[in-house]
Amino acid sequence: MEKGTYRYRVESRDVDFTLKASLASLCDYILRAAGDDADRNNFGVRDLNCDGCSWVLLRMCVEIYRRLEEHEDFSVRTWVNDVNRMMTTRNMIVGDASGETVAAAVTQWAVIDTDKRRAVDVTARADFSYAIVKEPSPVKAPVRIPVIDSQSEQMRKVVYSDIDFNRHVGSVKYIGWFCDMLPEEIIMNKEAARLDINYIHESRFGQELRVGMSDGAQSSFEVSTADGQPVCRAVITWKETTPKTDALCPNV
Amino acid sequence: MEKGTYRYRVESRDVDFTLKASLASLCDYILRAAGDDADRNNFGVRDLNCDGCSWVLLRMCVEIYRRLEEHEDFSVRTWVNDVNRMMTTRNMIVGDASGETVAAAVTQWAVIDTDKRRAVDVTARADFSYAIVKEPSPVKAPVRIPVIDSQSEQMRKVVYSDIDFNRHVGSVKYIGWFCDMLPEEIIMNKEAARLDINYIHESRFGQELRVGMSDGAQSSFEVSTADGQPVCRAVITWKETTPKTDALCPNV
Repeated sequence: MEKGTYRYRVESRDVDFTLKASLASLCDYILRAAGDDADRNNFGVRDLNCDGCSWVLLRMCVEIYRRLEEHEDFSVRTWVNDVNRMMTTRNMIVGDASGETVAAAVTQWAVIDTDKRRAVDVTARADFSYAIVKEPSPVKAPVRIPVIDSQSEQMRKVVYSDIDFNRHVGSVKYIGWFCDMLPEEIIMNKEAARLDINYIHESRFGQELRVGMSDGAQSSFEVSTADGQPVCRAVITWKETTPKTDALCPNV
Repeated sequence: MEKGTYRYRVESRDVDFTLKASLASLCDYILRAAGDDADRNNFGVRDLNCDGCSWVLLRMCVEIYRRLEEHEDFSVRTWVNDVNRMMTTRNMIVGDASGETVAAAVTQWAVIDTDKRRAVDVTARADFSYAIVKEPSPVKAPVRIPVIDSQSEQMRKVVYSDIDFNRHVGSVKYIGWFCDMLPEEIIMNKEAARLDINYIHESRFGQELRVGMSDGAQSSFEVSTADGQPVCRAVITWKETTPKTDALCPNV
């Protein structure tokens, strides 16, 4: 089995005020490559849907070495290197047009029964060993993130645009919510070096959710339901960057 | 001058719970084609930026005949049919893979000086007559929308993910905000037949905005600043549709 390589381009919708791809849009392309490669191997979402199942993302980590710029062509090379009854591990290397690695990711997935919303043993359903490429993950696996002791919190209600094709809040939406909580000091002076994210329980249209953030050497985030059930946790490790010369607001 | 034709594909990120492209994502592709075609004709945003200017969208209308489905290939054919010192009119026809028209749009643009944030006379800067295709607009021009008498209102603060490469709230973001205000009864039973939107004044990071909605035969929306200055207005005309059999929430 060969690794799959998927070519994309940073569009205007993907960039922030720095004209570079946002963390959320990078993650979206990483997950898009996962979907494209699973489709190519006939175990994509639509293939699983025929069997009453779907893929669910459990954990992801992304390391970013350089932010891609608007209109830049890039590729995502992806491979599965482990399949067991609990989890499938899929890896990604993001490369620019010259072949330099600009980011790398490890994603861990389960298969769920879409009616019962319960995990199923993927190895009992089919033999996916043909899809495995025996090459190590490019970075350390996503960490398990403990409960966050939030210093600041916001409430938010799940709205129409949060809901994806799986009829729950999309994986990348949470990342957008976390970035929107960041103070201007971080937005202007830091860039994400690594994101770890755990998807614990799905959330659905109309739900009232609490989003908490804790600041420190890293920024930690937790989404929970109104009665305290954890939904999603993330940690972003920062690197200092040249302060952004373009202000977040244009001149008045 | 030939019309420009740009080919795209509905990605997973573009669809809602019905697995069809959302109104916001359709508008995003329409505006992307505008950008791609202006680049092709050497009067795109980056060309104007070299001259201290940029394009600003004044008004848009979109008529939707059929919603595109996830993974569907489609095209946007676009042409400019009028350039005067106040405004440029660019038209789009969205076609599916068989050539059927699924949507059509008319967009009206001005050029602004990016420092002074003031409109400039584009005809005094260059002769764009070479870019004009003398073919009528595919639908009635975007209407001027009067003040909305809101029945419901929400306050929202402009956050990081709302800000685009022009360092103000992106044109499509407002459309997403409006759709997120809709009651479930409309989300489940109606589809947009036509959107008209007026962009009156830009809004920026950190601003507190009021978003009002008025319901009736049409749904009308207005974004204004905390002190009442209008920012954006829109009207969506609905058509009845087969009630969506897939609930907005999956079965528990």
